[in-house]
Amino acid sequence: MSGLLFVLSGPSGVGKSTLRKEVMKRCPTLKYSVSCTTRPPRRDEEEGVDYYFIDMKTFEQMKERGEFIEWAKVHGNYYGTPRRPVEEWLKEGFDVILEIDVQGAKQVKENYPEGIFIFIAPPSLGVLEERIRRRSSDPENEILLRMTNAHLEMQSIRDYNYLVINDVLEEAVDKLRSIIVAEKCRIR
Amino acid sequence: MSGLLFVLSGPSGVGKSTLRKEVMKRCPTLKYSVSCTTRPPRRDEEEGVDYYFIDMKTFEQMKERGEFIEWAKVHGNYYGTPRRPVEEWLKEGFDVILEIDVQGAKQVKENYPEGIFIFIAPPSLGVLEERIRRRSSDPENEILLRMTNAHLEMQSIRDYNYLVINDVLEEAVDKLRSIIVAEKCRIR
Repeated sequence: MSGLLFVLSGPSGVGKSTLRKEVMKRCPTLKYSVSCTTRPPRRDEEEGVDYYFIDMKTFEQMKERGEFIEWAKVHGNYYGTPRRPVEEWLKEGFDVILEIDVQGAKQVKENYPEGIFIFIAPPSLGVLEERIRRRSSDPENEILLRMTNAHLEMQSIRDYNYLVINDVLEEAVDKLRSIIVAEKCRIR
Repeated sequence: MSGLLFVLSGPSGVGKSTLRKEVMKRCPTLKYSVSCTTRPPRRDEEEGVDYYFIDMKTFEQMKERGEFIEWAKVHGNYYGTPRRPVEEWLKEGFDVILEIDVQGAKQVKENYPEGIFIFIAPPSLGVLEERIRRRSSDPENEILLRMTNAHLEMQSIRDYNYLVINDVLEEAVDKLRSIIVAEKCRIR
């Protein structure tokens, strides 16, 4: 029996990381596939835990060799999910969670249509903007770019199986965990 | 926006009632549609809470008038779900849970294919038999009939959306609640 692939996506700044970490505490058998990125680590990020921080050249070589399930260039940086661990875990029957941007989720859906796609949305675009401004010291034009992207990304909600609004963290975590538990009871 | 219809079904003796009551404590907005039956109340059952206990003639009149979403004769007794409260709640946007036998669930599926059908199964038929013998003082031939029916009913699992095995009560309740929470996040 093959494992289930859960794909967590949504606009930048919506809180995917926090949600994913909290849900993993509650579903300890869930495997998380650490992504590669060319962007520099944030203060609280750890190599091999949050991301594999690699340089542009290494990323491009891996990309050429088809070693990513999905990759995307987001706000000038590359992000990609290595293929091998995901495929091995699924084959061994483990459930896997990916935490990726909306472009990346689209690519995963082409290759894994049986995946379970969960869109994380902010309560409103206004709230998202506040969160982004609070978290980052990005210049104004970057923030505007993120907001434009978020607006566009919200239109792809209908391609997803589930929508979780990240308003009260504890409630959003409970919804995510419920989706995972329910999907494991689903008759396919 | 219309509410969701959750249909809890499975063999007699599997613990549908207990599960349904426990899940309702955790989902207080869920509406339960009390069924009608012609069988006499068990010691712990309350009129209008567990069932409406009605006589054969009243049942047959209601049946003729199409006042049941589903009805079934199970082990010599009639059971039926009154149509009106269910349809009104759904229209008002409330989620509704039904707790019915496998024959009844089949009828509901014909009329409400968009319902969410959850099969409650025992860990094994042997465990089910033990539970039935512990609970009832039915004669041997009744118990054998129930077991034959249970065996047949288990074959219809593939017509359901979810399977919950009622082994450890607390875990089964958590799965049921998760299915309800997840379905409310599902994009339709």
